[in-house]
Amino acid sequence: MTTMAGSDDDPPDEFGLIAELFAPLAAGYPGALGLTDDAAFIAASPGFDTVATMDTMVAGVHFLPDDPPDLIARKLVRVNLSDLAAKGAEPAFLMLAAAFPHGTSRSWLRGFAAGLRQDLDHYGVVLIGGDTVATPGPLCLTLTALGRVVAGKGLLRSGAQPGHQIWVSGSLGDAALGLRAIGGALPALDPCHGAALAERYRLPHPRTGLGPRLLGLASAGMDISDGLVQDLGHICRASRVTAEIDATLMPLSAAAAAAVSADQSLLALVLTGGDDYELLFTAPPEAAAAILAAAEAVQVPVARIGHVADADGEAAPVTVRGAGGQVLAMEYGGWRHFCPPVQGG
Amino acid sequence: MTTMAGSDDDPPDEFGLIAELFAPLAAGYPGALGLTDDAAFIAASPGFDTVATMDTMVAGVHFLPDDPPDLIARKLVRVNLSDLAAKGAEPAFLMLAAAFPHGTSRSWLRGFAAGLRQDLDHYGVVLIGGDTVATPGPLCLTLTALGRVVAGKGLLRSGAQPGHQIWVSGSLGDAALGLRAIGGALPALDPCHGAALAERYRLPHPRTGLGPRLLGLASAGMDISDGLVQDLGHICRASRVTAEIDATLMPLSAAAAAAVSADQSLLALVLTGGDDYELLFTAPPEAAAAILAAAEAVQVPVARIGHVADADGEAAPVTVRGAGGQVLAMEYGGWRHFCPPVQGG
Repeated sequence: MTTMAGSDDDPPDEFGLIAELFAPLAAGYPGALGLTDDAAFIAASPGFDTVATMDTMVAGVHFLPDDPPDLIARKLVRVNLSDLAAKGAEPAFLMLAAAFPHGTSRSWLRGFAAGLRQDLDHYGVVLIGGDTVATPGPLCLTLTALGRVVAGKGLLRSGAQPGHQIWVSGSLGDAALGLRAIGGALPALDPCHGAALAERYRLPHPRTGLGPRLLGLASAGMDISDGLVQDLGHICRASRVTAEIDATLMPLSAAAAAAVSADQSLLALVLTGGDDYELLFTAPPEAAAAILAAAEAVQVPVARIGHVADADGEAAPVTVRGAGGQVLAMEYGGWRHFCPPVQGG
Repeated sequence: MTTMAGSDDDPPDEFGLIAELFAPLAAGYPGALGLTDDAAFIAASPGFDTVATMDTMVAGVHFLPDDPPDLIARKLVRVNLSDLAAKGAEPAFLMLAAAFPHGTSRSWLRGFAAGLRQDLDHYGVVLIGGDTVATPGPLCLTLTALGRVVAGKGLLRSGAQPGHQIWVSGSLGDAALGLRAIGGALPALDPCHGAALAERYRLPHPRTGLGPRLLGLASAGMDISDGLVQDLGHICRASRVTAEIDATLMPLSAAAAAAVSADQSLLALVLTGGDDYELLFTAPPEAAAAILAAAEAVQVPVARIGHVADADGEAAPVTVRGAGGQVLAMEYGGWRHFCPPVQGG
């Protein structure tokens, strides 16, 4: 194996990089073959479905180029695990494809690998393969996450039925407000609140404990990555229903509550901003007690924010009502990936 | 679902792109959920291992930015299927993560999707998920390919033993010579030969038929992507053996033979150039007849190019001998991914 001679700021070659930084992350799983083979081997789990998801993050689009490398790695892991959690799946394996800019320093790469290690350990998953290449462009990271769920029991977007309640985990809007705070757009905000929100932008908390506990209780589920209203619209379209939510029931962190209290227009950001990585799910009313108990067991708050209704022709799938019961018009449906990149820092 | 109104050169948004261009590629597999969910579901195949691989290609590094979009898509599919073939796996599922440059035109995207369609059909695989994002940088494409092989029977790099013969499929050096031809570095070459070599650079031919037929015959295998000598070195290190190959036994296409005949120094490119995507495998001599029969059955030529020997301390793992039996010194061990990007066109 090629050794990584050279100073901390010499970029290592591909094989040295894999051997020094990434192979240790695969040590726990024989089928990963120490990341020295062309592919990984995964034994079948009879009675279970494999759940497979894939997310890409590009510097300047999905994170800020000067974000710390360990947090970039951890965000990458977490956005993928959030998708698995939303399906009720237990995470198991990750594959990483990384296009590192020319001249990426060894110390940056070490920080990135350290962040990976931290979250692999935290979530009990193992790296089994991937690819590392150099790019003349910005850092471009793709993770494939594989999990498992009892065969046929995974949570889809398509099971919501009229009369079901709409739930979300955790708190909404923190990441979108955090990105504003990083960009200096919330100058009146208490600095501690600003820091708390920025932290939520940089490091989501996938609800890997809650997701699998929703199997048999929830009727549909997804994670909120593109904004509550847009993502709830996806559930509505997949389930051929509509949804009505009450803006006054949005679960807010103390920091987000302070921000919205000072500027009510920021409520739109809570409803449509992206990067929440909370679970959004529907369930029949009779499941409510069991859902609350499941959430209590994993210490993740959950909140009911509305209900599912019949499909209604050409009407918008999601209606948002304010404090007086009036319908709030959404300026936009949420984050769209072909919008201009984020500007922060 | 968002519609794709607009002219051919308006970039579509993410959801329109997926609905119009990529969802049809997932239509054959219910677990892909029409690419409208967060993840895909794959039923277990008891008695089989899942084989998982992932490769990234960046414009200007792994292909030329002005290569036709359908050929870029097909190369992406093929380099991944080549990894599965090298493990003896039957390909089944693909997941695509694509970071498209801002302003990528609809017609370019249609060409890309058409190329995907062509090779998905050709190889009998289905797209089950992925991610599409925008990037301010170059096109960056990652594919995860999942296949299957009888449990525990997959071909590894680590099974080569002294006395085993070394085999390759197809012909070597075409892609590396093709890249030179594209760049104008082989002006004396017959234009038809140049075009044939360029085609092999742009469109590899993964040996998906041959790979699974080598199970039970070959002792170790991989595909040649970084150059024969470097990749054979990987087998040697994984198997703790050395290898000796005979440069006069390299299987050459008519075009490559013409190029080497005109300039003997190009033989080094055959031995060390990348992008062959041929199978490199070892097997005991008694398997030779069955290997030739398997190759004949799928109409893929195979050639014996050397033999495996005992490990030899600090010596280089791969020895190349020329026509007179003399040892050829390799100027470099093969393509390294942290080298400067390709310059062509």
